[in-house]
Amino acid sequence: MQAITKRSITGEGNGIIQVPQPIPKTGELLIEIAASGVNRLDLNRVAAGTADLILGVEVAGVVLENHSTDPHFVPGTRVAGIVDAGGYAQQVCLPAKQALLIPESMTYVDAAAIPENYLTAYQALIWLANLQVGETVLVHAGASGVGLAAIQLAKTLKRAKVIATASPRKHAACYAAGADLVINYQTTDFATAVHDYDAHGADVILDFIGASYFQQNLTCAAVDGRHILISTLGGNQVEHFDLRLIADKRLSLIGTLLSPRSNAYKAALTQAFAAATTRLFTTGQLKPVIDSYFDFANTKAALEYMAANRNIGKIILTH
Amino acid sequence: MQAITKRSITGEGNGIIQVPQPIPKTGELLIEIAASGVNRLDLNRVAAGTADLILGVEVAGVVLENHSTDPHFVPGTRVAGIVDAGGYAQQVCLPAKQALLIPESMTYVDAAAIPENYLTAYQALIWLANLQVGETVLVHAGASGVGLAAIQLAKTLKRAKVIATASPRKHAACYAAGADLVINYQTTDFATAVHDYDAHGADVILDFIGASYFQQNLTCAAVDGRHILISTLGGNQVEHFDLRLIADKRLSLIGTLLSPRSNAYKAALTQAFAAATTRLFTTGQLKPVIDSYFDFANTKAALEYMAANRNIGKIILTH
Repeated sequence: MQAITKRSITGEGNGIIQVPQPIPKTGELLIEIAASGVNRLDLNRVAAGTADLILGVEVAGVVLENHSTDPHFVPGTRVAGIVDAGGYAQQVCLPAKQALLIPESMTYVDAAAIPENYLTAYQALIWLANLQVGETVLVHAGASGVGLAAIQLAKTLKRAKVIATASPRKHAACYAAGADLVINYQTTDFATAVHDYDAHGADVILDFIGASYFQQNLTCAAVDGRHILISTLGGNQVEHFDLRLIADKRLSLIGTLLSPRSNAYKAALTQAFAAATTRLFTTGQLKPVIDSYFDFANTKAALEYMAANRNIGKIILTH
Repeated sequence: MQAITKRSITGEGNGIIQVPQPIPKTGELLIEIAASGVNRLDLNRVAAGTADLILGVEVAGVVLENHSTDPHFVPGTRVAGIVDAGGYAQQVCLPAKQALLIPESMTYVDAAAIPENYLTAYQALIWLANLQVGETVLVHAGASGVGLAAIQLAKTLKRAKVIATASPRKHAACYAAGADLVINYQTTDFATAVHDYDAHGADVILDFIGASYFQQNLTCAAVDGRHILISTLGGNQVEHFDLRLIADKRLSLIGTLLSPRSNAYKAALTQAFAAATTRLFTTGQLKPVIDSYFDFANTKAALEYMAANRNIGKIILTH
């Protein structure tokens, strides 16, 4: 068996180590990785000390072997997709049903920026929130990878009115992605700003913050609003919760996280997402925002950069 | 214009008063009411002092005039349905699209017990919670009108495992409706009892209680569980809320109330409900549970009885 190169800041130091080549199962593709996205989940795994796990949950690369029955994925095909682990490496196995074909005009770096961010945003906006044409969407952390993907998808797929929150140096990126209004959450009560912009309130809220925004989110939600809780970077503990805020406006508070879901779920989501968006990526109406590239050997620096919350858009590992 | 009889405990005393005959608009049916259901919404309206409103939000009766284009509703047709107000009366206008045809074998009393309870339960279980075949459902206030309807629907439509909470004297009614386990919430921690019965937890929770059950509900919810908040009889104020309970299990907390929704929504719900259930009411697989009848002249006694929370199943006003 051929040894391949593993790169991770966990395990034996921060450099490059050798591990066995992954062995594809039936239904999987063996991929030679060209670029890999950096995600908060990787930071969480480092913090949790899962030392035997190769980090990395999304990749773009080329098919080496097709162990599925899908004839699209002949060796040489360029694909991207989410994997459970193992993305910070030379090779990984990707279930064929979770593979996205990369358009000819797209680079591997751009393709590696798509799966986790856009699938998360698509799932939240379309599957969970059932976003309707012309509704108002509030996207917190608007300049994060998922945030920028959500702004683009809400605009492009549903012609939504999009309001984002971000720190001032990230406003331009949110506007460039299509936001109609970007709020400086450091100086402005965003609930008031949402109502000033649209008295109706926010039909859909994408929330990565949690406790520190909770009361304001419920306050600015519209009747029949859907509040999608993707992450709780601003804490978990809500000190007081008036259920009338949920009952009177018929709100839905929906917790979600893509990574732990089943492969069947991820496959169905990937298929629905590809059907809705492939053309839009080809024409450039959807375009991943890349913040920066790091070499695979500098994984640790890439993770520290993400932890510092300095990025606008996606951080990519590549060669 | 012919005067008709209005009965309400608000307004001019507790007896019977004369009011103008309702005038049907295009799309509506004029109904001669045979029976009317008593609902908590009526109590709320009394408490709110809406003195000029005729109480009553669901009726069964016979079509006097058909002002819609639907040929099913010729005069003489027996129908039931939810109305915005005016059910405690001789006549009321009912949008044809919100009218359910009463099966030949069914009495008006049974028919008047269907709309509010079964439509609420159907909406919660099927539309909002998207209940799947074989899932586990926890129904609080299992012997209430909505509770018994929910137990029957979860069993009949989705072969769910149904757990109910109720006080001991109401357990037999819950079992008769199809519950697999009924918990005495006065002596038993229901969250523990749910997990003892099904370690997986409750996929769907129908909650009329709110704050006093909130923590336990989130504790016994299954991964991907849907917690439908219909009412908050046990209070609104939750003192501490750990968002990880929502995030880690990907829960959905969904507030709902049928009455304030649009006629278009109620019409669509009524049509979906009729398509799914008419045959089951005809065969007796679904059967409303009637607690008691009151004469229309004893409206006040009927409402006091409901306020005392003594009923098992539906309270009906009739002649």
